[in-house]
Amino acid sequence: MPSTDIATLLIHCPDRPGLVHDVTGFISSHQGNIIDLQQHIDAEQNAFFMRLEWSMENFTLDNEEIESRLQPLARRHQMQMSLTFASRRKRIALFVTKENHCLYDLLARHEAGELPVDLPLIVSNHETLRPAAERFGIPFHHFPITKENKLEQEQAMIALLKQERIDTVVLAKYMQIIGKAMIAEFPNRILNIHHSFLPAFVGAKPYHQAFQRGVKIIGATSHYVTADLDEGPIIHQDVMRVSHEDEVADLVRLGRDLEKNVLAKALWWHVRDRVLVFKNKTLVFD
Amino acid sequence: MPSTDIATLLIHCPDRPGLVHDVTGFISSHQGNIIDLQQHIDAEQNAFFMRLEWSMENFTLDNEEIESRLQPLARRHQMQMSLTFASRRKRIALFVTKENHCLYDLLARHEAGELPVDLPLIVSNHETLRPAAERFGIPFHHFPITKENKLEQEQAMIALLKQERIDTVVLAKYMQIIGKAMIAEFPNRILNIHHSFLPAFVGAKPYHQAFQRGVKIIGATSHYVTADLDEGPIIHQDVMRVSHEDEVADLVRLGRDLEKNVLAKALWWHVRDRVLVFKNKTLVFD
Amino acid sequence: MPSTDIATLLIHCPDRPGLVHDVTGFISSHQGNIIDLQQHIDAEQNAFFMRLEWSMENFTLDNEEIESRLQPLARRHQMQMSLTFASRRKRIALFVTKENHCLYDLLARHEAGELPVDLPLIVSNHETLRPAAERFGIPFHHFPITKENKLEQEQAMIALLKQERIDTVVLAKYMQIIGKAMIAEFPNRILNIHHSFLPAFVGAKPYHQAFQRGVKIIGATSHYVTADLDEGPIIHQDVMRVSHEDEVADLVRLGRDLEKNVLAKALWWHVRDRVLVFKNKTLVFD
Amino acid sequence: MPSTDIATLLIHCPDRPGLVHDVTGFISSHQGNIIDLQQHIDAEQNAFFMRLEWSMENFTLDNEEIESRLQPLARRHQMQMSLTFASRRKRIALFVTKENHCLYDLLARHEAGELPVDLPLIVSNHETLRPAAERFGIPFHHFPITKENKLEQEQAMIALLKQERIDTVVLAKYMQIIGKAMIAEFPNRILNIHHSFLPAFVGAKPYHQAFQRGVKIIGATSHYVTADLDEGPIIHQDVMRVSHEDEVADLVRLGRDLEKNVLAKALWWHVRDRVLVFKNKTLVFD
Repeated sequence: MPSTDIATLLIHCPDRPGLVHDVTGFISSHQGNIIDLQQHIDAEQNAFFMRLEWSMENFTLDNEEIESRLQPLARRHQMQMSLTFASRRKRIALFVTKENHCLYDLLARHEAGELPVDLPLIVSNHETLRPAAERFGIPFHHFPITKENKLEQEQAMIALLKQERIDTVVLAKYMQIIGKAMIAEFPNRILNIHHSFLPAFVGAKPYHQAFQRGVKIIGATSHYVTADLDEGPIIHQDVMRVSHEDEVADLVRLGRDLEKNVLAKALWWHVRDRVLVFKNKTLVFD
Repeated sequence: MPSTDIATLLIHCPDRPGLVHDVTGFISSHQGNIIDLQQHIDAEQNAFFMRLEWSMENFTLDNEEIESRLQPLARRHQMQMSLTFASRRKRIALFVTKENHCLYDLLARHEAGELPVDLPLIVSNHETLRPAAERFGIPFHHFPITKENKLEQEQAMIALLKQERIDTVVLAKYMQIIGKAMIAEFPNRILNIHHSFLPAFVGAKPYHQAFQRGVKIIGATSHYVTADLDEGPIIHQDVMRVSHEDEVADLVRLGRDLEKNVLAKALWWHVRDRVLVFKNKTLVFD
Repeated sequence: MPSTDIATLLIHCPDRPGLVHDVTGFISSHQGNIIDLQQHIDAEQNAFFMRLEWSMENFTLDNEEIESRLQPLARRHQMQMSLTFASRRKRIALFVTKENHCLYDLLARHEAGELPVDLPLIVSNHETLRPAAERFGIPFHHFPITKENKLEQEQAMIALLKQERIDTVVLAKYMQIIGKAMIAEFPNRILNIHHSFLPAFVGAKPYHQAFQRGVKIIGATSHYVTADLDEGPIIHQDVMRVSHEDEVADLVRLGRDLEKNVLAKALWWHVRDRVLVFKNKTLVFD
Repeated sequence: MPSTDIATLLIHCPDRPGLVHDVTGFISSHQGNIIDLQQHIDAEQNAFFMRLEWSMENFTLDNEEIESRLQPLARRHQMQMSLTFASRRKRIALFVTKENHCLYDLLARHEAGELPVDLPLIVSNHETLRPAAERFGIPFHHFPITKENKLEQEQAMIALLKQERIDTVVLAKYMQIIGKAMIAEFPNRILNIHHSFLPAFVGAKPYHQAFQRGVKIIGATSHYVTADLDEGPIIHQDVMRVSHEDEVADLVRLGRDLEKNVLAKALWWHVRDRVLVFKNKTLVFD
């Protein structure tokens, strides 16, 4: 039976002539049919970027063979490559604290079949959302955090995530700063949602800051978590118009819609392997 | 012949019961018909705000009498009032440097009859846009600025603006910092357009800053000019989606559309007396 | 103990001078403090519209007295009035079929305390979403519909809604046409969400129609249900950019986000008594 | 001296494996460096689409040779190809009637160097905008149209356009229906701006229609002109929020901003050869 799988390749390397031809030659020579190809040059950085999807239907290599067979090509062009398959669903851990809007939004999308991922666990520093997790039948792990136990608890979380073979951590309104050990374990694989239009209003209470400044538009930003708080590569942003009628409580309420939609969209691109990180910025091949 | 004029009253004062009834009583008792009324309370500040338009068709007071007749009411409630009439067109001075997009946009709107203002003069620190001004038959005044002559030239500008009875100054991409003397002369009557989504990217080269940070949305902000650069009350903001495909030059090009539309909209509200400034924030009664 | 209740009055009537003064006089004379007032004239229709909120804190009339005491005023000006109180939460029935996105969105908002309503029941023509209802502990009523039993089932639904003292019906992706009897029972109190930017793409399969036409933007529309399918007064609309990359399945997926957000926003305004219907159009006092 | 020219190739053909490799092989074999490549498959139509830009810096073929040398490839895969060069600026004719907003917007963009085209002439059925044309030094041709002379005048226009080697006609608020002869002469090279969100409100007076229906959002659509009025392939659309406060005159005023921005954006993509027409729909490779 022919495979219905789809392979996705994300590449970046120094730019030079012939790169597209070389890579597509590899696909063609093994009878792959390219479904989608987007390529971009950053002239200033002399950098080449490409995202490529091909059908495995008649492909003459097995999934497991491809990476090693691509090595000579990668070495020749100093390529950084990431190869994934639609058949291998990503395993996602959701981290939450007390607010339910991002959590329910992701759980509903998952139940509707919109998010092609496994959701084996929810982590929280509070018990508040345990009933929400239980309603959807997803194991809920409570890791209470204090100044004293923070490092230790993070080690326990990492152990759990490894044991559950988690690919990606989604901070769905998790109100704790992520430690260096976890960031190192999941480089460009921890998504956060920040409730402002970064880089405006970094840090705490962005809606209060926005209200004080009297902005006419509020925003939300999803980014990968790095060691610099609120400074990681931005994946997606969106905004909403507000007015003098809106008090801080209105901004908080309106902002929830931004937050859940922006996080869901960023995660959609992430799980479809449409995001490539390069020097603290992202390319999103939409 | 009955007047077809429309009076507009902007009010703010400490909140207390009966304010709307008192003010509308004044209008009713002189046979004015209210066309539009918007009222807002800032509970935290205990502040009352109202904008009121009424038809002068059967009004029993002359335009000139109204302000003094409102005084007892104003004193009783400690009201700050601003009274204007549609029949008295505002006189606007446009300040430009080298970029033409905001200038042409405002001139075309004016020629199409969209902006009900007089445009008696254009001021610039460069000669570049003199032909543009001349095409539309508007006197162009060149005030070259150097470190040495800046204060002196600003005094000359102020004299010109006074002589021409200018109400409002529009900085339509005027690339000079406005001095304190001019700000004092035109409080909340100098509009600027800043090419970022304030408070993100204050200061110079915001599009370069936006590119470096890798934001997915760029913006523009129109605000009243105060002594704190880029910190004045925001009137209007808008944004636009960008991607990794967009280089700095693209951001600059795309941003021009934002800038001209945001400035024109802010000016539209300003000339219709729809903006009320309170403690470094605006209320826009749209 | 003084009341913390808030009264809201929606009014429309033929325009004439003195209306605002008369109505605010009624509030003032009973020691009410107006919190928010928006007034609008439709000059072409000679129609006057007003929305008014006042604090009941020191008001000298009981909630039950107000309506009758307003009658002389209403008669004098031929006013249509609607009076509501924040203390009386609306009772909402959610109607669904098989899709879960609007349902979960509203349930999550309700649980988060964002929607100040009672949700005593969910109605469906299918069993599909019973587990969703049960997760949130809301009674689920299954009314299977066939050509033969449609009228009869609708009578049974109406009886249930009356028994449960339902104020407003929300069609949260209910894929059945509502009959005349129910519309007559709930005039301007049945909200629907249509998955297109009305009046484009009325009727069935709007996303397929949008795909065929090659539009670059898709939309969703929430409106009150009237006897003319898809022709009722529009409350809210929103849109989203799409491209040639998006197939029908993508439009359906993306559209779900529009649908849930547009319906939730329309419902927010409805439950806050911010929507006034006049001649098949709405005024939304935002 | 090496060329700084850039070649752009737009291709569509039946899908089959190896197409990208074949085309990029042609570029590589002549030392071209690909700058930008976007490829798309329409699985339902089994159609392949690609846009490709390459640098001519070291390319071993002259501009004039390329098309014929591509023929074997095109025949082999039944490719429809369009080849253009950045060095050959398109020659654009602007058609206007009485409204100035799209005209001034395009003239200002051109003067600012934003639109890399030649503007050798403006055509109008009225004299109204002659002064606007003359201000910018562009020849203005007046073709008054009556029922009797319409066909004849259109022939005269076509002759003028041919004589001036016009590539593309832009209907910048030209209030006449274009005849079949001209459409045949400029297939997918006449851009129109329609003042509604098509397919809503086709035909005359769309803002009046929008007002009557009570929509909460208005739009504008730029499309290629075909024999079916308002039914041609859509290039770009945008929308704007309106409210019950907006009368028809406001919709017209607000709509002007949409119209000029949507037309300018569609033209930008058209002149950069980013639009591919396939079966009454467009692919816009942004």
